[in-house]
Amino acid sequence: MKVVKFGGTSLADAQQLHKAASIIASDADRRIVVVSAPGKRHRADAKMTDLLIAGWKQVAEGKSPEREREAVIQRFAEIGSSLKLAASDIEEAVTPLRSLPQAVDSLEEPFLLDLWKAAGEDTCARMMACYLRSIGIDAEYVNPGAAGLLVEGDSGNAVVLPESMVSLRSLRDRKRVVVFPGFFGYTPEGRLVTFSRGGSDVTGSILAAAVGAELYENFTDVDSVFAVNPALIPNPKQIAELTYREMRELSYAGFTVLHEEALLPAFRANVPVCIKNTNNPAAPGTRIVSRRAVELSPVVGIANDDGFCSINLTKYLMNREIGFGRKLLQLLEEENVPYEHTPTGIDNFSIIIRESLAGDEVLNRIVYRIREELQVDDVEIVRELALVMIVGEGMLDSVGVVARAANALAKAGVNIAMINQGGSEVSLMFGVRSEDAARAVASLYHEFFYDEVLHWSLLRHKAAL
Amino acid sequence: MKVVKFGGTSLADAQQLHKAASIIASDADRRIVVVSAPGKRHRADAKMTDLLIAGWKQVAEGKSPEREREAVIQRFAEIGSSLKLAASDIEEAVTPLRSLPQAVDSLEEPFLLDLWKAAGEDTCARMMACYLRSIGIDAEYVNPGAAGLLVEGDSGNAVVLPESMVSLRSLRDRKRVVVFPGFFGYTPEGRLVTFSRGGSDVTGSILAAAVGAELYENFTDVDSVFAVNPALIPNPKQIAELTYREMRELSYAGFTVLHEEALLPAFRANVPVCIKNTNNPAAPGTRIVSRRAVELSPVVGIANDDGFCSINLTKYLMNREIGFGRKLLQLLEEENVPYEHTPTGIDNFSIIIRESLAGDEVLNRIVYRIREELQVDDVEIVRELALVMIVGEGMLDSVGVVARAANALAKAGVNIAMINQGGSEVSLMFGVRSEDAARAVASLYHEFFYDEVLHWSLLRHKAAL
Repeated sequence: MKVVKFGGTSLADAQQLHKAASIIASDADRRIVVVSAPGKRHRADAKMTDLLIAGWKQVAEGKSPEREREAVIQRFAEIGSSLKLAASDIEEAVTPLRSLPQAVDSLEEPFLLDLWKAAGEDTCARMMACYLRSIGIDAEYVNPGAAGLLVEGDSGNAVVLPESMVSLRSLRDRKRVVVFPGFFGYTPEGRLVTFSRGGSDVTGSILAAAVGAELYENFTDVDSVFAVNPALIPNPKQIAELTYREMRELSYAGFTVLHEEALLPAFRANVPVCIKNTNNPAAPGTRIVSRRAVELSPVVGIANDDGFCSINLTKYLMNREIGFGRKLLQLLEEENVPYEHTPTGIDNFSIIIRESLAGDEVLNRIVYRIREELQVDDVEIVRELALVMIVGEGMLDSVGVVARAANALAKAGVNIAMINQGGSEVSLMFGVRSEDAARAVASLYHEFFYDEVLHWSLLRHKAAL
Repeated sequence: MKVVKFGGTSLADAQQLHKAASIIASDADRRIVVVSAPGKRHRADAKMTDLLIAGWKQVAEGKSPEREREAVIQRFAEIGSSLKLAASDIEEAVTPLRSLPQAVDSLEEPFLLDLWKAAGEDTCARMMACYLRSIGIDAEYVNPGAAGLLVEGDSGNAVVLPESMVSLRSLRDRKRVVVFPGFFGYTPEGRLVTFSRGGSDVTGSILAAAVGAELYENFTDVDSVFAVNPALIPNPKQIAELTYREMRELSYAGFTVLHEEALLPAFRANVPVCIKNTNNPAAPGTRIVSRRAVELSPVVGIANDDGFCSINLTKYLMNREIGFGRKLLQLLEEENVPYEHTPTGIDNFSIIIRESLAGDEVLNRIVYRIREELQVDDVEIVRELALVMIVGEGMLDSVGVVARAANALAKAGVNIAMINQGGSEVSLMFGVRSEDAARAVASLYHEFFYDEVLHWSLLRHKAAL
């Protein structure tokens, strides 16, 4: 049994829904289908969910959401008629849209937004089930509440409850193909709550884990995950297979293929994930697995992310002061600022922070408090830091990876402001100046991937002789 | 004005006291002399302080300390008569030894040990003042209490009080050469308390800072500080000059020339320190300064220390959990275990701990508590880790130091378990397996020091052509 999830671009219009349906039809093991809301059809288009959010905003401001609601209904109706669905079936699919809340109810307030936001996925699932039946596949729309996808948490920030996994397991036994809307669940009291960003991926991952799927296929609009950001390196290597840990480390530093929370249920249940392309389903895609065969290169991918700063502080004999690090982290916690890494010297402590998660005012207050409350000798902020990360399972068992990486950076004239290794076995992270980041990535890609290509050519050449 | 401190080996017998006195006599700027207690005369000998501690142990067990006290008095008397001091002067110097406490007084209990421990320095200072006068130098013994060296803290763990710096400043105006016993001060209530290990160095540093000395000369038994542990590399390079920060980083990882707390007062008052050899005062020694000229090699020294372990833990989405690091450090604080470094991955956190500071039972309890209270996915202890550190001011501004170091380690087949860079600008630390430590040090020394030697030879060769 496979769980298949289609993203917004895979469902943007009738043609895309048709491709998705063909993919479902081509493999009888694809028994559970999770859908996003239709995405953009072209660059200037609006996502269905954004239209719905705009509708709710009208309601919140005491205005009529009719224009936005009609635009949504109209788009679904167009998809339906292009797919030659019966008018009565289309009307049935869009009917719930007509009963979305039209006035603010202060008791339910933040969660009314969730009702609007979730309606894109819900309508899309109803329509997909209908279309699958029209092409001869015995499919049914299944509501997350009816199936027992229970959650808790704030509006837009649902967290799945463990008991869901038991209820959802019975989806295995459905005779029909299940079409399930992504992005939301229900509290035990029956209130609809959406997941945060990437929520349909989360739904797919939860279902795959609950039913113990042999595979969770995540259909998107790329053939595979690239080994490096294609904006920096043209036509980079495609990754055939990577482990959960590798994917997680890569996604931390700028890889955005799968929302990181989406991997957790699949990872815990040991369900392999495959990223595939709706527009090119024959391509093998990228598999995310627990363990993978070792390739020639110890490095599977290179990620980079910008917008970090470092608070560096010095205090003589700091490391004799029990509780110093804890007090420092507590101070950050009080200011509600998460930190990324804390490289420490003997009398030095650095805190790497994402600048987007702490405004200037907060940073200045933190520096002030560090100076006053921790009585340090010196404290300063260094801005415009980028993190560049090479990732590969078991990489750090191979002597020389650090040397190769550091050599490549040195040859490119990149100064290393920070190295972080030791927390994880699968990644090596360099802090560099933002202006050096692209050069750093290129030099590392050259070191770990061009050489590999060269090596294989040589092997083939030798074999040919 | 210079403050001069002589260590135990520089005062072990009459001949050594004579050398020290000649050093004092040879420079009229040496106005303040701090002395340790006489150390070992040969490998099998006892240090004076250890004899005194043995005496106190007798008292604490309700026995007579007479044998130990007599051994101490006898040694001082021998020194005195070899130095041809008058019998009455010798008797005056050793008299306070006769009134050391002979019974446990529960009210004063832990501090009675301090009285015994400090008596070696005190007697040595009295005798040195007497000897200096006998060779025509107008010198006087000055008691720390009388001079205002005020401290607070537990027995054997004195911390200097800031007001001391004001009182001690007047030592500048003494007409005679001041001979001051190291190792202890007095509480405002008049109780004698000793410093921890290296305490005479601390006294010298405090006096140098208080009087604003132009130089603090620390006389010991080596010509200079070596760039690497001579037990690992025969005849290593001698360091002519290094900064406080470099000295501090080196001493952290096994360099034991100066007790780290001893540098603090000199560092804060910006007084340069010179490590010199009592047995070879003509050698220039090693100067410890605020800023130094840059040498050819970016690395000034290599230190290593063994006996570390790492607690490695994994928890998916750990870095989304505000307060995780703080809770972890708080747990260590509750267990009273200091940590050295905390390299962090995305979902990983490692804590490097000195094994000597946490017994097996405590480590196992920490692991248990981490598993139970922080609900991690995985936690393990890795033992037999060594830290190897290259140190050099401004080193990390020079592109390529990391690459050279990592290359050297890779060539030597040393796997890097951890790198720590970013907390400090003057050091780069590698965690390696204990069994690899000596090889790691040798390869780094070869990389950063042999090449330097070679480079200079080449330059000279070219100049000669």
